[in-house]
Amino acid sequence: MSKKITIYDLAKTLGVSAGTISRSLNDHPSISQKTKDRVVAKANELGYKTNKFAANLSKQQTNTIGVIVPRLNSNFMSTILAGIEKIVNEAGYNLIINQSLESMEKEKLNAKTLFNNSVDALIVSLAYDTSSFDHFTPFIQHKVPLLFLDRVHNLPNCATLIINNRLAGYEATEHLIQQGCKNLLYVGGNQKRNVYSDRFKGFKDALANYELVFKEANILESDLNPTSIGEVINHIKKSAKQIDGVFVANDTLAAHLIKNLIIEGYNIPEDLKIIGFNNDPVSELVTPSLSTIDYPGYEMGVLAGQSVISHLNGSINFQSANTITLRHQLIIRESTQKQ
Amino acid sequence: MSKKITIYDLAKTLGVSAGTISRSLNDHPSISQKTKDRVVAKANELGYKTNKFAANLSKQQTNTIGVIVPRLNSNFMSTILAGIEKIVNEAGYNLIINQSLESMEKEKLNAKTLFNNSVDALIVSLAYDTSSFDHFTPFIQHKVPLLFLDRVHNLPNCATLIINNRLAGYEATEHLIQQGCKNLLYVGGNQKRNVYSDRFKGFKDALANYELVFKEANILESDLNPTSIGEVINHIKKSAKQIDGVFVANDTLAAHLIKNLIIEGYNIPEDLKIIGFNNDPVSELVTPSLSTIDYPGYEMGVLAGQSVISHLNGSINFQSANTITLRHQLIIRESTQKQ
Repeated sequence: MSKKITIYDLAKTLGVSAGTISRSLNDHPSISQKTKDRVVAKANELGYKTNKFAANLSKQQTNTIGVIVPRLNSNFMSTILAGIEKIVNEAGYNLIINQSLESMEKEKLNAKTLFNNSVDALIVSLAYDTSSFDHFTPFIQHKVPLLFLDRVHNLPNCATLIINNRLAGYEATEHLIQQGCKNLLYVGGNQKRNVYSDRFKGFKDALANYELVFKEANILESDLNPTSIGEVINHIKKSAKQIDGVFVANDTLAAHLIKNLIIEGYNIPEDLKIIGFNNDPVSELVTPSLSTIDYPGYEMGVLAGQSVISHLNGSINFQSANTITLRHQLIIRESTQKQ
Repeated sequence: MSKKITIYDLAKTLGVSAGTISRSLNDHPSISQKTKDRVVAKANELGYKTNKFAANLSKQQTNTIGVIVPRLNSNFMSTILAGIEKIVNEAGYNLIINQSLESMEKEKLNAKTLFNNSVDALIVSLAYDTSSFDHFTPFIQHKVPLLFLDRVHNLPNCATLIINNRLAGYEATEHLIQQGCKNLLYVGGNQKRNVYSDRFKGFKDALANYELVFKEANILESDLNPTSIGEVINHIKKSAKQIDGVFVANDTLAAHLIKNLIIEGYNIPEDLKIIGFNNDPVSELVTPSLSTIDYPGYEMGVLAGQSVISHLNGSINFQSANTITLRHQLIIRESTQKQ
C-alpha cells in the first residue's frame, strides 16, 4: 500500500498549520469557508482518509455489526441479509457477514473473531447442530447487543426475532386435513432448532385437534438438503398406509419432492398433497405450484436492522422487548387442491 | 458498553507486571508456559480483547475485505458470496458486504465508505446502471487491490474474473438453432454491462454463422425482473413472424417465461424452445426443466477469495494476471428438446 496521507502532509502542501487542517476537516466555526473548501478539495485530491481507527479507538465504537448465518447461499437467508444491509447501511453501519456452514465449531470461531473485531452488535441465526451457547457469553458479559433471528435460542438480555412457527405449522397441517388428507407426514429438520421443533408441535396439535392419531411413521427428520430426497421418497413408498399429505419444513425440498414424486408416477395433488414453508420464489414456479407458508424474510431483516440501530442509538432498549414475532400467512396454490 | 478490560487490569488481577501480560499474550519465549496459560485463562475469563485497532493502526491493515454486489437476495450473487466468504474467513479475513441495489449512486457511497474503512482489498460486481468509474480511483491510487467479477469494467491494475459470456451466448443460441429454431429472440439486460452485451454479441455471432438475418425484433432489452414478464409475453405474441426460440439472459426470468407461456396456451418445447443462463436451482425444478448455461458462481467466489488473499500475502500479484476466465457449460434439459 502507498504511504498514507496525514494531516501534516496536507498542512505542508497547503502551507497552513496542522491545526487548521484538523479544524477545517471537522467543520470548525473558527475557519473560513474558503479555507475549508481548499482543505477538503486537497484532502480529496490526495486521498486523505479520516483516521477512523484512532477515532474509533477513543469512542470504543467500530460502526460495524457482525452477522452469523448458517449459509449465505440460501434464498431465505440472503433475503433476510438484504433487509438488514439496507437498514444498517443507511444508518452508517457496515455489516461483517460470516457463515457457520451449519457447524457449531465454525460458529464458535465466527463469534470469537467478531468479538475480537469489537463489533457494535451481533445478529445470529444458529447453525444446524449448535447445542451449547457459551460462545455468546462474552457478548452478553460485555453488553454487546445480541439478537437472534429465525433459528433462535433464549439467552438472558438477548432479543429474538421469529414467526410463530408452531401456529404456522398448525395452519399448514390443518389446511392439508381440510383438503381431505388423513395420513400425514411431516418432513422437518433437526429438532434442536426451534423452527423445526415448533413446526412439528404445530403439526401434532393439528392432528390431535382433528382426532388423527400420531404415530412415529408420521415424522421424518431430514437435513432438508435436496440430496436427501431419495430418503423422503423411500419413506413415502414404504409407508404401510398410503400417505396422502406431506408438510415439508422448507420449499426447496418440497419442490424437489413434487418433481420426484411425479417421476415416480404419483399424481399431485390427486394422490398426495404437499405444502412447503417460506414462500421462496421456487414455490410459484414449480408445477403444480406449491402451497406454503409465507415467511417475511426481508421484513425480518429490516426489523432486525432497525432494532439493532435503535438500540445502539439509545432510542429503544431491545433487551426488554425480548421476543418480536412477525406475521406469517398461509398461501394456497395448486399442490394442495381438493379433488 | 461495559468498561473495556486492559492489560493493566489483567496485571493487577494476576499480580504480575503489564509487560508480563503483554509478552504472555504475544507468546514470547521469555515467559513460562505456566504463566502464559494463567494469563490466557484470565484474559478469556474477563473478556479481554486484543486491541486490534491499535495493532492495525501501526500495521495499516484491517484484515477486512470489502465487497459491493448489486443485490444480496439473488441466488447467483449469494452463491458467489458463499465462495468468497469461505476462503477469506479461513485466511483470517472478514468480509464487509454492501449492496448497491443496482444503483450507481449507492455504489459510489458504498465505495467511499469502504475506502474510509481502510479495507485491505475490494471486490465488486457492478450495478445495473453504473456508467462512470471515478469512485474506484482512490483504491487504484492507493494501491488497494481491486477485483471485479461477473459484471466487470477494465480499469488499470485491476483484476477481472469472468466467464466467456460471448462464447456462452453463442453456444446457447447455436443449441436453439440446432434444435430447429429459425426465428429467435434474445431477452437481455442493460447493454452497458459486459455480461448482457457479450451474450448478445454471441447471439448475433450464431445467427450470422447459421445465415439467419438479425432484425431489431430479435432483441428485447429488459431489466430481467420477474415483474417484467408481461412485456416479454407481449413481444412474443405481437411478433410478425412466430418466434420459435428464446434465449433469456437469466434463469429466473426464463422460468417465469415458461410458466406464463404455458398459461397463454403455448406448448413448450413444441411451439417454442427456451434456454436460460446461470444454472440456478430453479432451472431443474420448473416444468419442462430449463436448458441453460452453467455459470460456476461458487467457484468464481472461491477463486476471487483466493486471488485476493494470495495478493495480500504477496504470493501472487493478480494485477498482472488482469483477466481470469472460468469455464462455463451448456446444460441441455427439456425446454429445448427437438420434436
